[in-house]
Amino acid sequence: MSYEFKAVRRVEFSETDMAGIVHYSNFFRYMETAEHGFFRSLGHSVVMDQFEPPMGWPRVHAECDYRQPLRFEDEVEIHLLVSGKKSKSLNYLFKFRKLNGPAPVEVARGALTVVCVTKQADGKFTAANIPPAFADQIQVAPHELLA
Amino acid sequence: MSYEFKAVRRVEFSETDMAGIVHYSNFFRYMETAEHGFFRSLGHSVVMDQFEPPMGWPRVHAECDYRQPLRFEDEVEIHLLVSGKKSKSLNYLFKFRKLNGPAPVEVARGALTVVCVTKQADGKFTAANIPPAFADQIQVAPHELLA
Amino acid sequence: MSYEFKAVRRVEFSETDMAGIVHYSNFFRYMETAEHGFFRSLGHSVVMDQFEPPMGWPRVHAECDYRQPLRFEDEVEIHLLVSGKKSKSLNYLFKFRKLNGPAPVEVARGALTVVCVTKQADGKFTAANIPPAFADQIQVAPHELLA
Amino acid sequence: MSYEFKAVRRVEFSETDMAGIVHYSNFFRYMETAEHGFFRSLGHSVVMDQFEPPMGWPRVHAECDYRQPLRFEDEVEIHLLVSGKKSKSLNYLFKFRKLNGPAPVEVARGALTVVCVTKQADGKFTAANIPPAFADQIQVAPHELLA
Repeated sequence: MSYEFKAVRRVEFSETDMAGIVHYSNFFRYMETAEHGFFRSLGHSVVMDQFEPPMGWPRVHAECDYRQPLRFEDEVEIHLLVSGKKSKSLNYLFKFRKLNGPAPVEVARGALTVVCVTKQADGKFTAANIPPAFADQIQVAPHELLA
Repeated sequence: MSYEFKAVRRVEFSETDMAGIVHYSNFFRYMETAEHGFFRSLGHSVVMDQFEPPMGWPRVHAECDYRQPLRFEDEVEIHLLVSGKKSKSLNYLFKFRKLNGPAPVEVARGALTVVCVTKQADGKFTAANIPPAFADQIQVAPHELLA
Repeated sequence: MSYEFKAVRRVEFSETDMAGIVHYSNFFRYMETAEHGFFRSLGHSVVMDQFEPPMGWPRVHAECDYRQPLRFEDEVEIHLLVSGKKSKSLNYLFKFRKLNGPAPVEVARGALTVVCVTKQADGKFTAANIPPAFADQIQVAPHELLA
Repeated sequence: MSYEFKAVRRVEFSETDMAGIVHYSNFFRYMETAEHGFFRSLGHSVVMDQFEPPMGWPRVHAECDYRQPLRFEDEVEIHLLVSGKKSKSLNYLFKFRKLNGPAPVEVARGALTVVCVTKQADGKFTAANIPPAFADQIQVAPHELLA
């Protein structure tokens, strides 16, 4: 049973904007880096094409609170924590910590709600139960970690 | 006095992902398209380099709820509404409507909280009062539009 | 018969980098804006899912020469010219002109070679003849326009 | 003296497009990952703000030839080789190899020409000699590696 995953990225030049900091939309890409690493850590891919029909995980809610900017070449740890688990959906909390500098510091905090869906031949998505082989591997993180 | 702005974009191929839909992070780029158009509609640029020190508008909170996917070549209207106004910050609500198809339909709804800052020579940001020439032009949208 | 298309974009904040200019990779996204507008101007979509198997246009070569930077809120015209046409591939030339400022000025020039392919069920691509309904509509631009 | 650097990335979901492959513009972002890693391997940053005026490395030419697509979660090695060195500019060759799969295979090959510039207070760039402390560390790769 797993409830967390940590990914580390170094900020790329192409992720910055003319304000000299990481563009705020890129934090949502960083969240996915941790989410997909979490899937791989459990032996799965977020692209579940081995199922028929294929399954996927579209987002229904995304948010982020920004405390400090990230800059080029900063090292950032994205700490994913499972904050909710239902039959068809998962909630994630993300803590962003800048690792370089005098001491690690939390620079942002994000959240995602993702829904398990099957993709129909016409491209439509239908909510579906999380496959048991995956659901049985994950659990909600301890309360104190979600504070 | 103004409280809204509408921008229209056509979904680019490069904004889609392998699920065949607009990547969720791009809705946050779409929000900026409307925000910066709103500034221009009032005769300003979001990059306020004419001030000394220069001013900018970093985000402290961003969120989005996704109801239906957008696909390549869809036409999407991004309707910005000012939902809050303080001395140093603004709140925006964004309604995303897909315009092509039988009838326009709301596909997502987003929100931003942005803070007015001055940029110091060392790259640090300090919260600052919104310049009166800009603040006097904007007001919070009527309650019924924010529902 | 058509051999050109012009698209106009305004530079987005999210397209800039910490050097204060449009990130060089975005010129390749701009080229696609003109390419896909060219397809639409002829009544087609670059995503040819109406064929069985579906057809697409992957790139086999891309290049760009940069003369002057583009900055936030610059208006840029992307002028696509068909520079080559074979049974299975097309060549495009792109002239980027900055429209704001004292006089329009060419800031960059790009080129793409794209190949018409069918997409097999296993995701593989196979080169294919350009559908006649599309090929008959396009021709190579006059030599003097390609200089 | 150094003439090469290898970076490895795993393809992110957000780097794919609706064709199910890495969008071609992202290969130019991958090139930068290797370029900036090359700088760091020599104790430098591509953002040379320690100079007065600050120096930078805008691109004047970029190109890429695509042989095979990259897909989600592929591991790609970006092998930078210095292919030319002048007083004010550098040429890089990039070999992209997909590492997962039965055997490593070259999937694309790119090239960049970058110019050393100083950034004036008004934002303009002026070509400048490469700082000796950096120029003395790099040399052109052996001919056989550039084939």
